[in-house]
Amino acid sequence: MKLIRFGEPGLEKPGVILTDQWLDVSAIVMDYNEDFFADNGLERLRNHLNSPGLSAGILPVVDPAVRLGPPVARPSKLVCIGLNYEDHARETGAPIPAEPVLFMKATTAYCGPFDDIIIPKNSSKTDWEVELAVVIGRKASYVDEASALQYVAGYCLHNDVSEREFQLERGGTWDKGKGCDTFAPIGPFLATPDEIADVNDLRLWLTVNGEPMQSGHTSSLIFKIPTLIAYVSQFMTLLPGDIISTGTPPGVGLGMKPPVYLQPGDVVELGIDGLGTSRQRVRAYAPASD
Amino acid sequence: MKLIRFGEPGLEKPGVILTDQWLDVSAIVMDYNEDFFADNGLERLRNHLNSPGLSAGILPVVDPAVRLGPPVARPSKLVCIGLNYEDHARETGAPIPAEPVLFMKATTAYCGPFDDIIIPKNSSKTDWEVELAVVIGRKASYVDEASALQYVAGYCLHNDVSEREFQLERGGTWDKGKGCDTFAPIGPFLATPDEIADVNDLRLWLTVNGEPMQSGHTSSLIFKIPTLIAYVSQFMTLLPGDIISTGTPPGVGLGMKPPVYLQPGDVVELGIDGLGTSRQRVRAYAPASD
Repeated sequence: MKLIRFGEPGLEKPGVILTDQWLDVSAIVMDYNEDFFADNGLERLRNHLNSPGLSAGILPVVDPAVRLGPPVARPSKLVCIGLNYEDHARETGAPIPAEPVLFMKATTAYCGPFDDIIIPKNSSKTDWEVELAVVIGRKASYVDEASALQYVAGYCLHNDVSEREFQLERGGTWDKGKGCDTFAPIGPFLATPDEIADVNDLRLWLTVNGEPMQSGHTSSLIFKIPTLIAYVSQFMTLLPGDIISTGTPPGVGLGMKPPVYLQPGDVVELGIDGLGTSRQRVRAYAPASD
Repeated sequence: MKLIRFGEPGLEKPGVILTDQWLDVSAIVMDYNEDFFADNGLERLRNHLNSPGLSAGILPVVDPAVRLGPPVARPSKLVCIGLNYEDHARETGAPIPAEPVLFMKATTAYCGPFDDIIIPKNSSKTDWEVELAVVIGRKASYVDEASALQYVAGYCLHNDVSEREFQLERGGTWDKGKGCDTFAPIGPFLATPDEIADVNDLRLWLTVNGEPMQSGHTSSLIFKIPTLIAYVSQFMTLLPGDIISTGTPPGVGLGMKPPVYLQPGDVVELGIDGLGTSRQRVRAYAPASD
């Protein structure tokens, strides 16, 4: 299945992509949130969509002009893995990590795949990072690697937008530069694991204003997805709907000589095989009118 | 007002402390969560409690033997400030920060003020940190210091439990050692700002098995509460119900020579003037039966 959420920010409804149409399933499902995943919602939705009485015609078709939100509701946490592609670690000048590097993105960074990226006030180093994000389907604590994939609800495309001065030059942990509003465009959809033949054989790419910047392959992940789920679950319980973002391949702005950062008006496009593409226009912060 | 939440984990109901009684306000308030604070719930609750028709006798009295949960619902984020007492920075061997050090605790760490602290698997360095926590009452983005206190819903006692090996010796950011389950006992109650004469004039203390370990005073905060709210809101939007924990005074286990860490059976007690006391028994991790 491919899950989407559509509608205005904070008012998104759940939908599915079936035979290239977007169908509204809000009559069946409240939202793709912690309760949905915990309550076996994926299986119930799948059964519902496969039930003999249901033809796609029964579900309302969603206007493809509608805004897409992130494909799962705001999670309890957004855990990210740093420096998980060897060539990316090298370009940032960091050593290859002996064990996964963890940090957290504030969930207020969470936004839709085609929403604008807002350059924060006082920022001059807003950067891009295409990443494969894993959505957790079941409460996971002290999970072993062998069973870790049983805890996966699905996979999504994620742009782990990062402010490098806030992250690296302002003291303390990376979290300052990772959780600014709009710094986590996720989607267009969540693909359940059956949609992806081999999650270790996916190409990732990102362009800025049409120019290729990042190009990578999940076969180059230093720590693979089962390792990451098992590892993170040693330090904190992962709840249904929580997200682990698995790290970015080389080609970020910080790694260029000289570094290149996002400017208002820039357009970032990114994609992962089987997980769709997203597109964000970059704009400067302006105070909200409300 | 002093707000409490009581009942089993995940099923807590809202209450208030009035004239030393715990009163159940679940007939008036759904929960002390993001919607409650955003929707002016504090003022409405206060008006309700002050309305001429209401005598305390109308509200059900809560059995004081009931479990207390954290006094506000699980927040979207738990932002913590590191090394914010000069003498504590010195005891850990860290330099005095030029600007606030931020990190995030996974909200799954969140628990009640008298719940057990669980020593994680493979942990040998679980440590204590008494802290003053600030609960945000209104959405806060790019707030200035002069108006920052208008964004405060209230204050709570917090034990920022920390695993020092996970935090400092396992690579990457501090987040690995800060967000283990039960590492954020909060409460017993939220005190609204009118309950606290001067938030910069509060004594903090913590004992382990009755032995004094931490003793400090909020007058020694390097960065004061308005500065912290303004600062954090430059990097992420704070939502109603979000928590900023303001740092710990000296006397943590890491700072002892040699260091001393929590063992199963230990009892930690802590308190802050005007914010009550809490008490946690320490136990080793054991797999849940469910």
